[in-house]
Amino acid sequence: MDSTQKISHLALDIGGTLIKLVYFSANGDYSEESRNGCSVVHGKLCFAKFETRKIDDCLEFIRFNILHHSGVQHPNGAAHDKLYVKATGGGAFKFADLFKEKLGILFDKEDEMHSLVGGVNFLLKTVPREAFTYLDGQKEFVEIDHNDLYPYLLVNIGSGVSMIKVDGDGKYERISGTSLGGGTFLGLGKLLTKCKSFDELLELSHHGNNRVIDMLVGDIYGGTDYSKIGLSSTAIASSFGKAISDGKELEDYQPEDVARSLLRMISNNIGQIAYLNALRFGLKRIFFGGFFIRGLEYTMDTISVAVHFWSRGEAKAMFLRHEGFLGALGAFTSYNNQSHNDIKSHQHTVQRAILNCSGDNLRHIPVTSNLDDSETIECSINLV
Amino acid sequence: MDSTQKISHLALDIGGTLIKLVYFSANGDYSEESRNGCSVVHGKLCFAKFETRKIDDCLEFIRFNILHHSGVQHPNGAAHDKLYVKATGGGAFKFADLFKEKLGILFDKEDEMHSLVGGVNFLLKTVPREAFTYLDGQKEFVEIDHNDLYPYLLVNIGSGVSMIKVDGDGKYERISGTSLGGGTFLGLGKLLTKCKSFDELLELSHHGNNRVIDMLVGDIYGGTDYSKIGLSSTAIASSFGKAISDGKELEDYQPEDVARSLLRMISNNIGQIAYLNALRFGLKRIFFGGFFIRGLEYTMDTISVAVHFWSRGEAKAMFLRHEGFLGALGAFTSYNNQSHNDIKSHQHTVQRAILNCSGDNLRHIPVTSNLDDSETIECSINLV
Repeated sequence: MDSTQKISHLALDIGGTLIKLVYFSANGDYSEESRNGCSVVHGKLCFAKFETRKIDDCLEFIRFNILHHSGVQHPNGAAHDKLYVKATGGGAFKFADLFKEKLGILFDKEDEMHSLVGGVNFLLKTVPREAFTYLDGQKEFVEIDHNDLYPYLLVNIGSGVSMIKVDGDGKYERISGTSLGGGTFLGLGKLLTKCKSFDELLELSHHGNNRVIDMLVGDIYGGTDYSKIGLSSTAIASSFGKAISDGKELEDYQPEDVARSLLRMISNNIGQIAYLNALRFGLKRIFFGGFFIRGLEYTMDTISVAVHFWSRGEAKAMFLRHEGFLGALGAFTSYNNQSHNDIKSHQHTVQRAILNCSGDNLRHIPVTSNLDDSETIECSINLV
Repeated sequence: MDSTQKISHLALDIGGTLIKLVYFSANGDYSEESRNGCSVVHGKLCFAKFETRKIDDCLEFIRFNILHHSGVQHPNGAAHDKLYVKATGGGAFKFADLFKEKLGILFDKEDEMHSLVGGVNFLLKTVPREAFTYLDGQKEFVEIDHNDLYPYLLVNIGSGVSMIKVDGDGKYERISGTSLGGGTFLGLGKLLTKCKSFDELLELSHHGNNRVIDMLVGDIYGGTDYSKIGLSSTAIASSFGKAISDGKELEDYQPEDVARSLLRMISNNIGQIAYLNALRFGLKRIFFGGFFIRGLEYTMDTISVAVHFWSRGEAKAMFLRHEGFLGALGAFTSYNNQSHNDIKSHQHTVQRAILNCSGDNLRHIPVTSNLDDSETIECSINLV
């Protein structure tokens, strides 16, 4: 067994577009303390993601980097003939047979909403500098008072969008959602720009100008505001509305501008529906998660402005550094419940770090995820 | 002057995509009664529409069919050097100079929201069998109790969407809106399907199947429901989400299916945002207007189902036969206020009729609107 790689406690969140992985990697020196009769293993929570349509890459990754090195440990800490791993998301159902057949792994299925909420609560309670606001180009970390955390609205933007009112640990209700989510952005984006990936599409949108295709209030009003109802001339009256009258074909537009309008349309719409749902229940804090945002400033800015505009400053949009791994983290933390292993994040040692599993074996795997755009969380696991 | 064509009281609503016209056409026999010192002229309210980008067609139409035949009457009923007509919508500002230059017409501008509300109130109060519900393929006319009309939510779906809480005659507030409207449907639709017109796109959508491109809950969950939170396997998880993983290009999809997904996405989104806004103010009735719906069953069904689903049957979506002409009708009825002319709809004589202005001159005009898909309203005008 490679002494630098002690990987265990894999959890998967298999969505319609992406597969998210969280796993524990023990420190190179495999420092195992004994404390109150428990073995304490120090290490890191690591993160990886794959496109669901390229699920074979994910299987390879798990085979070479996790099973191959260490074997996935059974929840009770012992190696075992039948390997169970925590899995959530719709793919935990859809791909259960595939994982069993190809890797001999059995899924211990966790409910999707339950996992999302568990992931966010874990992050907000144990990882400092996790939540932040983004407004007017300013990122600001928010200290969360554990006694004043609930209720909040969780908006998880995956392929589709789920909106969950969270009242406590394990106390939540999915109150709304929208089918206009990350899958819509990438799906429509691919059809409109021939982009191959989410990253490519986001990069495009970064250089675009939405005013080329969006119909602004000023376009209808001849350059003036509709001030009586508070609509400035630069407000978007109709997303993609200019494409009606420009006499242009798709090829005549810059893909950058198309991508930008699309991103703006979807971000703004999610922000608005989130605000309306927060309003229903008097929720002042809205946490946005899911792999749609990916720390992109323009997306966060659009969502923040939408929430700020519609709520007249009453509600606040907040983002999470580990936004993309909420469900996977929630599934991961559920090992706690069954095995009495205790996963603790080291409250003051979270730092940006390259995943320490990016060793030689990775060269053989067409890894599609940006492994280094995630942030590991230093933590320890108590093996009872 | 042609004895069969006495046209007066033109009102225009110039939006980002369409120009809507309402005008009064006196009956062929020009029956003018004298009643209480007023001249009563019987006739019809007629409707026409043009694409804003083809505004020249509209100018021609007005020149040949309205100015040419009768001259547009000044609000006080007398012919006048300076012809004023009521105009609303953003184009009342944008195109004021054009109408003055080309037709010698001056715009008497009416506020857009005010006109929309005026138009709906006029229709609901004076035109029987105007409002109807549409659910499960059943169209059902709703009798409106004038004493129990307010408050209601008006959702006007033009290029963009305005949501207006109406509390009485002239008492209203624009409480919300969305940039995902008819302009988005047609704009994106044109880019995706190469359709040239709204009609063509609607016709396409009629024959499509949204499940080809939309990612359903069952697609993520391997064919099963996510029953715990009430999502059936056929619910749309992500609009256009299948385009991510199909490995298809735009050309590989049937334009019918693309149009269908687009219509479903936008209709559903509007229904949801409308419901959330109705909920905020406890509004049980939501009237949908604007030229997006156009009596299309699939659109009405999608909106109705969205409102029904999200409100758990509490709120009701209602549609209007003259949905496309709300703003123009409101501007038209505002002639009342200034000139003391009194426009009354004959409560029991509304019937489907071909516009009586479709005479010889029409042959010279490339009329892009379906003149016969509107319904005239028989009415009389009191000239004081």
